[in-house]
This record gives sequence, C-alpha cells and structure tokens, in this order.
Amino acid sequence: VSDPALARISVVLVEPQSAGNVGAAARALRNMGLSRLVLVRAPDTDVSEARRLAMGGRAILRRARRVGSLREAIDDARLVIGTSRRGGKNRGPALDVRAAMVRAVEAARQGNAVALVFGREDAGLTNAELDACHLLARIPASPADPSLNLAAAVAVVAYELWRAAGGGMAPEPRVLATARQTEALFEDLGSVLIEIGFLNPKHPEAMMHALRRLLGRASVDPREVRILRGILRQVRWAIEHKPRG
Amino acid sequence: VSDPALARISVVLVEPQSAGNVGAAARALRNMGLSRLVLVRAPDTDVSEARRLAMGGRAILRRARRVGSLREAIDDARLVIGTSRRGGKNRGPALDVRAAMVRAVEAARQGNAVALVFGREDAGLTNAELDACHLLARIPASPADPSLNLAAAVAVVAYELWRAAGGGMAPEPRVLATARQTEALFEDLGSVLIEIGFLNPKHPEAMMHALRRLLGRASVDPREVRILRGILRQVRWAIEHKPRG
Repeated sequence: VSDPALARISVVLVEPQSAGNVGAAARALRNMGLSRLVLVRAPDTDVSEARRLAMGGRAILRRARRVGSLREAIDDARLVIGTSRRGGKNRGPALDVRAAMVRAVEAARQGNAVALVFGREDAGLTNAELDACHLLARIPASPADPSLNLAAAVAVVAYELWRAAGGGMAPEPRVLATARQTEALFEDLGSVLIEIGFLNPKHPEAMMHALRRLLGRASVDPREVRILRGILRQVRWAIEHKPRG
Repeated sequence: VSDPALARISVVLVEPQSAGNVGAAARALRNMGLSRLVLVRAPDTDVSEARRLAMGGRAILRRARRVGSLREAIDDARLVIGTSRRGGKNRGPALDVRAAMVRAVEAARQGNAVALVFGREDAGLTNAELDACHLLARIPASPADPSLNLAAAVAVVAYELWRAAGGGMAPEPRVLATARQTEALFEDLGSVLIEIGFLNPKHPEAMMHALRRLLGRASVDPREVRILRGILRQVRWAIEHKPRG
C-alpha cells in the first residue's frame, strides 16, 4: 500500500482560512496514499470541525508540519508544482493536472522530494509564490465558474496523483464468456424461442440478431451464460412436464 | 459553455446527512458544467453552512429537486450509475469512474437522461438502491482508506465527467521554438562561451551536449529563444564596449 514515491510527495497549503478545509484535505491525502501535509500560517486545526472532516486522515492532520513561509515549506523539495486557475502573463501556460501529476510521480520515483502547493481559498497563490514553483498545474473546469473549493481541489489532485502512481490501473478482474459459451446459449435460445412459437423457424434471423446485439452489449460472463441457459432448460421442462390446470 | 450532454446528467444524493456536503456538492457541479441536483430525503439546505459552501453553485442548490425516494429521483433516467466503494457479491465488479463517465457522456450525447447516484456519508447505498443502478462506478483509492468524503467524491466524479465531455482536451496553446531557432541559439551560445573562455574551442562538445539537454528538457518557446539570444548579444557588447574600471 505505501508507495515509496508517494511518500516523497508533500501537499503544502498556504494560509488556508478554514480549519475544516484543512481537515478535509488531510482525509483526501489519506484516501490517495499520501501522508505529508505542510501548513503555512494555518489556523488552529485542533478544533472539532477539522478533526471531524479529517476522519481517517486525523493522524496526517496531527503530524502536519507547520511553518511560517512557503520558502520554509519547500526548501528541501526538488520539484515544486503550484496549483493555479490561470497561467498568468509571462508565466507560461499551466499544465493539465493529469500531465502534471505524471511529472510529479516521475520525479518522486527518481528519488526527488516533490511539493504540491495550494493557495488561499479566496485569493490563491501570490505572484511571488507562483514564481517559487517550477511548474503550474491547472484543474480543467467550466469557464463559467472554474474556482474549486480548496478541499475539492486537493481531492482531485490527490486522485490524479494516485492514478499516476499506478493506483488506477488495476481493474477488478472480470472474465467474460468465450464465444463457444455464448454460441451454445444462442443455440438453446433459438430453439426454445421456436418451441414456444415466438420465432418463425423459417426466418429467425432478424430477432436473433437483435438478441445477439443486446447480449453482446452487456458483455456477459460465464456465470451469466449458465444462468440464462438454466432458465431456458427450465422453460423446456415446464412445457413438457408441468401439470396443466 | 453549456454542453447539452451535461445538461442531461443529474446528480442524485440519497439521504445526505450534512447540509454542508450538499452545498459543497452543488459548487462542484457548477465548477464542472453540471446543473441538475436531486436530493432524496435531504436535510434543510437553506442554512448558512450549505449556502456558504455552495458559492457559485447556490442557484443549483436552490433549484435542487427534492424527492422522497431514489425511485422517484431516477424515474425518467435512462442510464443510472451508482457510485460504490465495492463491487459486491453477485453484483459484478464496478467500473473505474473514468470509464463510467465516458459511458455517461456517451449515453447523454445519444439524447438520454443520465443519473449519477451517491449514497449516505456513512453507509453509502443500500443493496436495493445499488440494484436500481444499471452500472456501478468506483473511484480508485488507497485500500488503506478508500472512503472519500461525499463532497470529494462528487467533485472527482464531476471532474471526470467534465473531462469525458471534452473539457480536459483543449490545452492552453503554447508554440515551441523551431529547430532552426534553437540551432541559432546554440550557435550564438557556443561562440560566446568560447569568447569568454568558458569553452575549449577544440573540445566544445561535452558541455554543449549538456546545455542542449537542459534546454531541450525545458521545451523553450520562440520568446525565450529571443530572450536568451538577447542576453548573449549583450554579453558580447559588454565585452567589447563596456568601459573598464
């Protein structure tokens, strides 16, 4: 679970105003395998709202490093990525957060300490603070209102970091049915539909095509094929053996 | 800005306990171009915490549809995607949220109303509620603590939806320097470095390779090439004309 690359990445919150946001950010870190939180001139977070929102991230909140300036927060970092809504004049465009997090994980895997810097809820980062960053990352959002809540921004960045570190790449296993299994199902299905008088045995194709498309779209697995064939077997049994009323 | 596909997608919160979470969710919707919020047995959201956290999403919060059951919330939806931490027995594995949001946008573009369903902060969705969903989506997270805050989960899902709708695909334009421009820079640089006695004119290669690698990694643009060549010109001028002390 503990990825040594993620352990080299810290999240720096510069002058967060809401203790609740700091708590929610700590939880988002915990959710995404991060553990290092640095707070620059933050309010007291040993308050009930922050602790409540931190949930499983409470230990991260408690162990957060508290410093008096961004400079102090990033002094040992070898890659500093600032989050920003805008590129800014003479600053060059910001990277898409997804690409930026790939860079962050790459630098961390090479052994470098990485700092991800978030600004104030209302005013973001100052120009001097943005200048202290090597790269700027932007979360794509609606131009009508691109300003995310601080905790939401931390959650999205941490989520992309977790994915970039490989966390999103292991899909839950699901083995689909083989063509042999689905063909056996369609054979049963066709003959039962003819038996019950639903299909015209001379022109079964159009209806069978529709049913094939439906089940094809559903990407059935072997268990589902067994269930469906079991139903068809039972229909046959009922037709032949069920006492009539 | 208003994507007709996104306008067909609604976010359904089932029995949220915290009015603040509902407000924060409304803001996340607004950030990502969504506008339809449906609340199933939700607390009063006309309270200061919810309004404060909703920010630009206040109108979405005010216009939220309030219903008494999930069934009522999704009655007109043609694709219902539930969010879940787990696949669950007999339920099949959940889709990765990224893939699920591609499906959501695809269905919406085909003209279908889509509902994204989120469960309670503490207990998620019940089995009956999960059964009412056509697909389940999962946000990849650390196995050590995969349980996201409700507002954070809404933010990540809305973000992936915005990207799936094309919102993440327009990088800010940045035209890089042509090879002709950078070669002219390296020519200037080489001759200045020889002039100032930094480079051995007989073996300039190793140092020039290192400088090429550095600037290559930086992906310089034409303006930066002009700045650097300007500096080199000025170095030459200073060597030849600057009065000596």
